[in-house]
Formats: sequence, structure tokens, C-alpha cells
Amino acid sequence: MFFASDNSSGAAPEIMAAVLRANDGSQRSYGGDDLMARVTAQVRALFEAPEAAVYLVATGTAANALSIALTCPPWGAVFCHQKAHVAEDECNAPEFFAGGAKLLLVDGAEGKIDPAALQVQLDRIGAGGVHSLQSGMMTLTNITEAGTLYTPAEIAALTALAKAKGLPCHLDGARFANALVASGATPAEMTWKAGIDILSFGGTKNGCLGVEAVVIFDPAKAFEFEIRRKRAGHLFSKHRFLSAQFDAYLEDGLWLRLAGQANAMGQRLASGLFSGNDAVSVHPVPANLMFADWSRGTSVRLQAKGAQFYSRAGAEGRERARLVTSWATSAEEVDAFLSAYAAQL
Amino acid sequence: MFFASDNSSGAAPEIMAAVLRANDGSQRSYGGDDLMARVTAQVRALFEAPEAAVYLVATGTAANALSIALTCPPWGAVFCHQKAHVAEDECNAPEFFAGGAKLLLVDGAEGKIDPAALQVQLDRIGAGGVHSLQSGMMTLTNITEAGTLYTPAEIAALTALAKAKGLPCHLDGARFANALVASGATPAEMTWKAGIDILSFGGTKNGCLGVEAVVIFDPAKAFEFEIRRKRAGHLFSKHRFLSAQFDAYLEDGLWLRLAGQANAMGQRLASGLFSGNDAVSVHPVPANLMFADWSRGTSVRLQAKGAQFYSRAGAEGRERARLVTSWATSAEEVDAFLSAYAAQL
Amino acid sequence: MFFASDNSSGAAPEIMAAVLRANDGSQRSYGGDDLMARVTAQVRALFEAPEAAVYLVATGTAANALSIALTCPPWGAVFCHQKAHVAEDECNAPEFFAGGAKLLLVDGAEGKIDPAALQVQLDRIGAGGVHSLQSGMMTLTNITEAGTLYTPAEIAALTALAKAKGLPCHLDGARFANALVASGATPAEMTWKAGIDILSFGGTKNGCLGVEAVVIFDPAKAFEFEIRRKRAGHLFSKHRFLSAQFDAYLEDGLWLRLAGQANAMGQRLASGLFSGNDAVSVHPVPANLMFADWSRGTSVRLQAKGAQFYSRAGAEGRERARLVTSWATSAEEVDAFLSAYAAQL
Amino acid sequence: MFFASDNSSGAAPEIMAAVLRANDGSQRSYGGDDLMARVTAQVRALFEAPEAAVYLVATGTAANALSIALTCPPWGAVFCHQKAHVAEDECNAPEFFAGGAKLLLVDGAEGKIDPAALQVQLDRIGAGGVHSLQSGMMTLTNITEAGTLYTPAEIAALTALAKAKGLPCHLDGARFANALVASGATPAEMTWKAGIDILSFGGTKNGCLGVEAVVIFDPAKAFEFEIRRKRAGHLFSKHRFLSAQFDAYLEDGLWLRLAGQANAMGQRLASGLFSGNDAVSVHPVPANLMFADWSRGTSVRLQAKGAQFYSRAGAEGRERARLVTSWATSAEEVDAFLSAYAAQL
Repeated sequence: MFFASDNSSGAAPEIMAAVLRANDGSQRSYGGDDLMARVTAQVRALFEAPEAAVYLVATGTAANALSIALTCPPWGAVFCHQKAHVAEDECNAPEFFAGGAKLLLVDGAEGKIDPAALQVQLDRIGAGGVHSLQSGMMTLTNITEAGTLYTPAEIAALTALAKAKGLPCHLDGARFANALVASGATPAEMTWKAGIDILSFGGTKNGCLGVEAVVIFDPAKAFEFEIRRKRAGHLFSKHRFLSAQFDAYLEDGLWLRLAGQANAMGQRLASGLFSGNDAVSVHPVPANLMFADWSRGTSVRLQAKGAQFYSRAGAEGRERARLVTSWATSAEEVDAFLSAYAAQL
Repeated sequence: MFFASDNSSGAAPEIMAAVLRANDGSQRSYGGDDLMARVTAQVRALFEAPEAAVYLVATGTAANALSIALTCPPWGAVFCHQKAHVAEDECNAPEFFAGGAKLLLVDGAEGKIDPAALQVQLDRIGAGGVHSLQSGMMTLTNITEAGTLYTPAEIAALTALAKAKGLPCHLDGARFANALVASGATPAEMTWKAGIDILSFGGTKNGCLGVEAVVIFDPAKAFEFEIRRKRAGHLFSKHRFLSAQFDAYLEDGLWLRLAGQANAMGQRLASGLFSGNDAVSVHPVPANLMFADWSRGTSVRLQAKGAQFYSRAGAEGRERARLVTSWATSAEEVDAFLSAYAAQL
Repeated sequence: MFFASDNSSGAAPEIMAAVLRANDGSQRSYGGDDLMARVTAQVRALFEAPEAAVYLVATGTAANALSIALTCPPWGAVFCHQKAHVAEDECNAPEFFAGGAKLLLVDGAEGKIDPAALQVQLDRIGAGGVHSLQSGMMTLTNITEAGTLYTPAEIAALTALAKAKGLPCHLDGARFANALVASGATPAEMTWKAGIDILSFGGTKNGCLGVEAVVIFDPAKAFEFEIRRKRAGHLFSKHRFLSAQFDAYLEDGLWLRLAGQANAMGQRLASGLFSGNDAVSVHPVPANLMFADWSRGTSVRLQAKGAQFYSRAGAEGRERARLVTSWATSAEEVDAFLSAYAAQL
Repeated sequence: MFFASDNSSGAAPEIMAAVLRANDGSQRSYGGDDLMARVTAQVRALFEAPEAAVYLVATGTAANALSIALTCPPWGAVFCHQKAHVAEDECNAPEFFAGGAKLLLVDGAEGKIDPAALQVQLDRIGAGGVHSLQSGMMTLTNITEAGTLYTPAEIAALTALAKAKGLPCHLDGARFANALVASGATPAEMTWKAGIDILSFGGTKNGCLGVEAVVIFDPAKAFEFEIRRKRAGHLFSKHRFLSAQFDAYLEDGLWLRLAGQANAMGQRLASGLFSGNDAVSVHPVPANLMFADWSRGTSVRLQAKGAQFYSRAGAEGRERARLVTSWATSAEEVDAFLSAYAAQL
């Protein structure tokens, strides 16, 4: 009963098999491998973006921080949600990669940036001349840190505001596949058609060993990205092992099937958990990540039965638990958790 | 006939098998996996260093740049050989990670720092007050970029000079296994017993998919390393896949067997190639990397027969080729190359 | 009728005379001048801090950003008030100097950090391991950006919270003299006795041409400050001209007399302005800086009569004006403004 | 007898008088003062560059490091002479401001970059793909650190090589006036007509209190410079005091008269010193800075008579002394030194 993180699962068998296959023979290093050409072609086709530049790195923090550095000058601001991963969980990586840029935290319910709150912040740009807020970029996360979903229309509304001020827009898609499955949108609809200029396209949480693609829709800055990737130590010499993962991930829609399983298990868990009298869902649960608000003591009782997840004190007499399903979560595992939950009530 | 780089080979079967095995079940992410504890224990035992802190990253540039940043303040200098990988091949990564430190290039024959030249540079430290050269650190590479070997005594001589000025010392061991095999030294003799404070212990070039250990002999700065690794995006969520590689790499001396094969093939290649009248070895060849000086036209003729390697114009009528063997190089491959070479003379 | 900024006034005659006097003869450059020794001695005596290290720079941003960089690692957070000058008005200088540190904005009424809000943020330190908020430092401003005053006891309460988490504490004293005059505290009471480790001691706004002292109460990091100052281009070659200003500034309490005049004029302006039926003071006015909330249209009418100050739209039908007096403000100038104000009602 | 540095002199009376005059009344801060408009107009006229952007900072290191950061990406290289001030005397300021760029040291006799040596380094750009040397910028110094002079033709020859590779070119003109006087060239001939894109136009060493102009001939990056200046703490609030200095410096050719005096005294000193049998000039002496090679013991004997200058051990039995004259050096002072020199032979 493992619901602590989608990072705790291993790799899907198809991905692992591809890594094994990629091991044969010699290959050009540093991204010159044959598989990378296939990855680029697949990504371009999927996104209906024949010009897009595609690069692989091994961690989500690298994908995000490099994307931010590419689009935000050192004196700029990274407009992001108050609880964004880049703000809360990356140990100043964006500030480091972007040479001292500032994160500008914007409020909004359900883990999503509120357009009015964004506008207030955007209006500050340039108001104080050289002294205060300069331009920068905006980064959104989908699925959000709250487990919620931006629709393409919601993304487009926010990027329109940002672009009216000249800000490039990034999407942190560590759970991009989960967002697509939850929304029914196409990759293009969720990204460049909605004003996204650069995407962190996650693989690791959804069945890979460790690989994220960065998709740059306007390839003008592609070479700069290559330089930044190398300079940050994120260019793999035996790059074929990243390529192989992402190639297999995209092949025949595997990535969407894996996310489909994660989301289905998320729905199964949520509908079981939040149908009774105690546990309440803190946010809507469109995908595979949820926050349960339940009576204090519940977490310890469930953990004693072998369930793994994060929990912290909530309001008076309550606890707030975070539960995540993954491509590897089975219906049996969910049902066992629900039984354990029911048994302790 | 692939002699372009030890990065162009894949992973050794034992390593790949370990990665497969590591895929079972759920594991704590971000280095909390069970295999990492085994890696740490193995490294400490191998190096006779029970207090050493051990961390894994996926690329050599990450290992080097993080090690340098850990030991050099932003206003300091990185004393390194003129042709060091950190100076020539990492796209300002050390300068980036260390927040604007300066590389101070020191001369020396055969790819090795000359002690007298080092002393001249060290004597400049502090001579100009706040204006000029401040302290910093020293980094050596073994096997060097020239393919040559520092003996433990040579390392100790250089670190003694550096330490007299208070400089911590790093060893870039991208080919550490090859150096040990070539020298017969123990890990401890080549590192902390010779004054090395922090080591980039390479796995990638020698049969891993992509993993390098950073070994910090004085663990006082261990937590800072963890912070720097995370902030640079080099902490893997599914860290087990790094651990599995390095654990298998060290198990039962696999790493030394792999390097032994690479070095033996290097010797076989060198003794065949440099015993005739044309090709001359630019430097001594103690391990798996060599530079051949031969008649102009030789490279093209060999490449036409399928040999892969880098070559550039040399002195009048000559060419300089770089040839690298790896754990995956076979005697047949070497012999085929030597035949091709002989045939074109 | 100039109330736009205390930066718009020139230099006090005593300061200018000292600069003239300092021009005679040759002097050691880069801080080795005779006057600097006097400055250090005067500061140490004034602060009852015989060990304090004292350095001069020419701008407040330099003083603040260098102080922050000295006390905050690149992965740390700068705990400061939401509206702090370092957060709003220095174009990411703290982030730049500190190598990518993060500003962590804390709420609080009247421009002052609320202790409970600070505690909430402090409690996040270390909670997320290497991923999230690390340690750092705290910076307070006195007189605050709201024109309000921290008493020594209020400062001590905040620094006690910060120090319980190991954070060094900085005071941005761009208007330090005004704060001392307003509070009646001694320099020591407002700083090290209240837990302040490093002070930006402003001279520019209070009658100098351009000089700020950085006072480091624990001199262990003094040399690092010297290095950082040089490396940031803030070490003056003809340093005597900074020394001369600060020496004259401190001589015979000139600095307190100048701030006394600024504050007295602030009080005269505030008591005239806020005694009627329209203009309301947004915050208490203990010193020389105030925000007036008055009927829309007032600002334009006053500016038409020659008054200079910043104003922006306020709530429905209201405006918010910022008014600053300085050492150079005369009673006649205040009275003329008050008359103009009364006349337009 | 003060020949240690042109930084040890004070300010010329005309400059000091202008600072005094500038103190009257209120002025817009941060560069909005009336005098700055005059400075810009004067610089544009002098350089026959009606579009040039002109900014003032207070130190040479600020002028240089900001200019370098403006023209060199963090992954680029700063091509400069081995002994350039930016390489030897600025405590990694260029690396800091440029976010981790690398200084690439180029050889050349007499303190001047050798075109052939430059070409060798330039040819490395891009040769190693993302791994090794990327583009960047070139910076020259005139008068050089060796006291020698680049003619406009020599500058043009070097900038032509750099520009063929796309590198912007900067001139460190800490002693720009001395170079103009020595060469007879116009400001335009020495800068943009010779391929210089950005100039550090020194005032401090030549009679100002502390001010340097940065002249950007292509104003496209002007706003970025403003941002960088502010973010580095180099924008003065009471900017009028910088403007006043530079305005008076340029007025009626004062700057050239001051440099003329410094150079004339340099010539007088050199011709006296190097006409005998012992002291030899290490380099040609076109301006106000020279290096004397003389018998060991000479320095101590001269210093005992009150002469101030730097000296270090030279070759066997010899010493190398650095002697600098300034606008404030008098013929009497030179003659007294020459007499003292003659007396001790």
C-alpha cells in the first residue's frame, strides 16, 4: 500500500526493456545517438510542432531550472504559484540556474494561479524603473501541486495575461501525462496552442527510470539550451540510455496508458475514501494526487497497517494526508487501503 | 573498431543486470534506498575510510563541478593543469557551480602539473591583498587528459604544496579505476593518503550507464554537498537506479576487472602501434588512452576501413590521433585495427 | 517644497567641507587612508563595540546586498518584510550578491515583521530536507519603508526568534540616525544589544554625498567582507573621499543633529497635515517619512503649486501620497506646504 | 616624491569646485539630474557618436565588470591579455558580474595582445561543440598595464580578428586620457572607429574623486546596462555628485590637460632616469607609467629619501620598480626624485 510518491515506483517493463536493448554496441555519445533522433521525431509529431527543439535531462529540477534560466534574465522574476514545486521543493535551483532571479509568488485557490492576482503582480513590472520588478517569465504546473488540473482554456487565460507583458510561459509537466489524461486535451492544446513556449515533459514519475524532455516550441533559443544543459552537468555522455527511455515511453502511447492507470487508481481511491462521513477531499481530484482531511489518529492507524504516505497535523482534531497513485498502483492495493481505512473508522 | 571514446561503449552486463534487479517494488526516493547504504559501506571499506561521505550523481561534470564548488569560494581560484577536463571540456561548469571562481591554469609536461610551476602560482596567493589572487583549491586528474598517470607519490608532492597554502585537493577520477590498475596503488594510497580531500570516482566511462560517486574524506562538508547536489538538479528521485549501478560496479572487484580489460587493450594497441617506424606515441601509455603521431593521411585511410577515433592535423606532414579503449574493447578489435594500420603503411 | 525623497537633498556643509579638506596631498588608496582609521575608531566608540569591523561603500544597495551575501548562503533564504527595500527596490541585488538566495517575504502591519508570522516561516526551515527551505538570515529595516519605528525591544524579539534557528540578523539602517533620534536609543541598544550582527549604517540620505558604513559586530567575517566588497567593485581607490564624509558625519554628533532636523520637520509636517478633516496618516509618523491618505485631486493641486512628492491612487475617491523630509528641510518649507494644503481644501 | 599610483593623488581643483557647485538645491536622484544630461551631450560630441549611451559609476572595477557582463554570456570567455587588470587585480569581479564566465588569457609582448596568439585562441571557439570554448568578448587596456600604448591601428587589427568571430570589444580606459595624449588620436579614432563597442572611460586616476563613464556606442543594450548597474549597487542616489565630476572633467578639455601633465611628467622622469648607465626601462614609456630595472638596493635607498613607489626583486642583482606620475605630479617632484636617484648611484 504505497501512496507516498509516484517517485517511489520503479520503471515500467517496456521502459526497462528498451534500456536493455539500447545497450547493444557502440553509440555516439552526448545526444548524437540514433534513438534521440527518434525521440525528437516522436515529440514533434505528438505536439504537431515540426520545428520544436527537444532535449533530455534526467531530473525534473534540471528540466524546470534550465527552462526558467532560458527564459528569465538574472534580474527578472519567475511568476509562479505560491505553492509551486519550483518555489517550495527545489532548494533555490531556479534562482541558481537563472543567476539570481527572483520567484514572485502569486496566490490562487486549488493550487492554481488566480488571473486577477496575477494581473496585480504583472502590473508592477516596470513601475519602479530600474529599481524594482523587471520582466521575467511565468511558470505553471499541471497537474498542480494540489493535485488539480488546469484546463487548456485556463492556461490560455493566464498566458494571455503574461504575454501581454512580454513574458514567456513555461509549463512544469512533471505530471503532464496525468494532466492530458484527466483533461482529454491533446499535447498541442495543452501547450503551444494555449500559449506555452517551453515544457518540462515528465517521464520519471510516470514509469521511467529518470528522464524528462524539455520541449522548446520556438527553437530560436535551442542552442542556448544546449549550452546551459552542458554547463550544468546535465548532458549525459551515454545519452542513449535517456533516449531509450523516452522513445519507449512515447511509443504506441505507453505514456498515456501508464498515466491512465495512475489516474484510474486515483479516482478509485478518491471515490472510496471521500464517500463516507469522515475523510474529505481538500481539493478536486482529477488525476492521481489527492489531499485527505480526516480525523486525527487516522494516519497512524493506517500506517500501522502498512500504508505509506505523508501526513501532517490539520485543523483542530484533523489531519491532512497526501496520497499519490502511480502507473504501478493496482486495484488490489487501492482496495486494501480502502478496507484498512474502513476498518479503523 | 571503435576507439573514439570510452563513453561510446554501453554498460557491462553485470551493471545492467543490477539495474534490472533494482526495479522490483517500491523504494524510498532521493537516496533513501537500501542499495545506497550498501554503496556507502562498500566505498568506505574500499578506501579504508569509515567516515567518508559518499554521494552519487549521473555525470562527470556534475561530480567535478560540485566538488570544486564545495571547496572553492566564489572569489577563489581552481588550480588545475592547462589541459584539464574542467578547464577545456566543461563549458564553464566549474565557474558556474562555484559562483564565479577563476580557473588558474598551471603548466606541466605529459598532462601533469609541474611542481615548480605550481609553486610559482601558489606564491601569488594573497600577494595582492584583496585585489588579486585569493585562495581556492587544486584539482588533479588521474588518468590525465594526456593518458598519463600520476603515481601516489607525485600526487602527494603536489598536494603538499597546495596544502601548505591551505588549499583543499580534489581528484578528478573519471578514469580512477584505470589509474589504480595502471599504478597498482590501493584506493586509499591514491587518495587520502596522498592528500586528496575529495574524489570524483568515475563509473560511467568504465561500464556503467551513467553514475559517478563523490567521495568526501572529511565529512564536515557533507550536508553542504547534499544541498548543492539538490540545488543543481543532480539528486535523482528514483535514486535506486544510480545506487544499483555503483553497487554492482564495486561488487567483487568488477570495476577493477573492467578497467583491467580496458588497460590491457590499451597496452596491446600501443605496443602494436608504436613498435614500427611511423606512429610515435606522444606521451607514455600506462592505461587506456593514447595519442598517436603518424603520417598525414593515415587517419583518413583507417577511418575509411571503419575505425572510429578523433584526429587532427599535427606538425608538418603529421597527424595527431586520439585512441581510447574501454572495458568493451576486445583483442580482436585491437588486432583488426593493427592489421588495418599495417596494411595502409 | 521638496518632499519627494531624502535622496534629493545635497550634502550638509560640514560634510562638504571635510571632503574639500581631504583633498590635500597624497594618501594611501583603497582604504589605507588616515581618515579611515578615525572612522573606525569613532564607530567603535559610538557603538561600544571595540572589536567591530567597519567598512565604507557608496550606496545603500551595496551595503545591504554585501551584508546579506556575507550572512546568507546561496541556498538560503533572506527573511524580510513583504515591503522591504531589499525586496522591492533593489532589482534583485540581494539575489545577485548572494549567488541565488531566495527572499522570503514575511507579513506584518505598519511595515514591521509580525513575530507570529515570522515564526511560521522559521518553522519551515529544514522541514523538507534538502528540497525546501534551508537556513539563511534575517534583515530588518529601521526606520521602516512605512516610516515606522522598531523599538530596540521589538528588534530583540524578532532577532531572538531568528537566532533560535541560527539565523544571523542584519539591520538596514539607511535611516538609522532617524531611528535613533525617534527612539532615544543608543547605537548599541538598537543593534548588537538587540541581536543585530551586521548593520548598514546610512549616511547618504542624511547629509552625505554618498557613503554608507557596514558595521560587523563579530569581526570573524571581516576579511570575507573585504573580498566581497572588492569583487563587487565597491572598494574605492580614492577612498579618502568616503572616509572624509563619514568622519565628519560622526564628528560631534553631526549625524544626529541632521536627523534631528529631518525628524522635527517630519513631525511639524505631520501634525499640521493630519490635524484637519481630510488628510489621514496611513501609519504612525515617528520620524521623517509619512504616507498621507487624502481626497483625490489634492496631489495635483499641491504639485501645481510647486510641491514635489510621489502620489498614487488610493481607495475610492482617495489618494496616497508619500512625503519625506530631510536634514535640509526648513520650517518655512514645511509651513509653505501646509499653507498650500490648507488653501486647496 | 609620490610615484606609487595615480590613485594616490586627490582631485583637481576644477573638479572639486564643480562638486561644490553641484551641492546647491534639490535634484532628481538616480541619474535624473540636470548635469547628467550635459555629461551625455559632451561625451557624444567628443566621440562624434550622437547615439552613444553614457553611464557613470564610481570605480574602474565596476565599469569594467559591468561592461564585460553586458557583452559576455555566462558560458563565454573574456579574451584579455595575460596581465590585464581584469585578470590580475579585480578579485574575480568579471567572473562574478558575468555569472561565471571564463577569462581567457592571451600572450603578447609589452603588455599588448599579440594578434597571432589571439587568433590561435579565437580559432578554438566552437571547435569542441557545447563542451568547450564558446564565444564571448574581448577586452583591451589602453594605456596597458605595462605602461605601453596601443595605437588605433593596433586596436583595429585586434578587434578585426575578434569581430570576425562575432566578439564584441571593450576598451578598459582607466588611463584613456593618457592614451589619447600619447597617441594624438581622437576619442573616436581610439574607440568606435577602431572597432571598440564599449569603453570604460576613466576619470578617477586623472583628477576626479571617483567616477568612470561607460560609453556604449551601440545603444541597443543600454537599458540592460542600467539594470545591471542598479542590481550591482552602482547606481548613485545623489548621482549629481558623479555627474558634476565628469562634466567638469570634460569641460574645456580639462581631462586632456590633466593627462598631458601626467604624461609630460612621465616623460621627464623616464628621460632622466633611463639616460644613465644603470636604470633601464622595461618597456617603452609613452605616457605616465613605467617600470625601471635597476641595481638591487636602489629602491630602498630612494624610499629612505622619501620616494614612494612599488618595487620587487628582479633578475640577479636587479630590482624592478613601478613608477607612476599623475596630473598632480610637479616638475619639482620629478627633479627631486632624479636628484635623489643620481645621488645614490
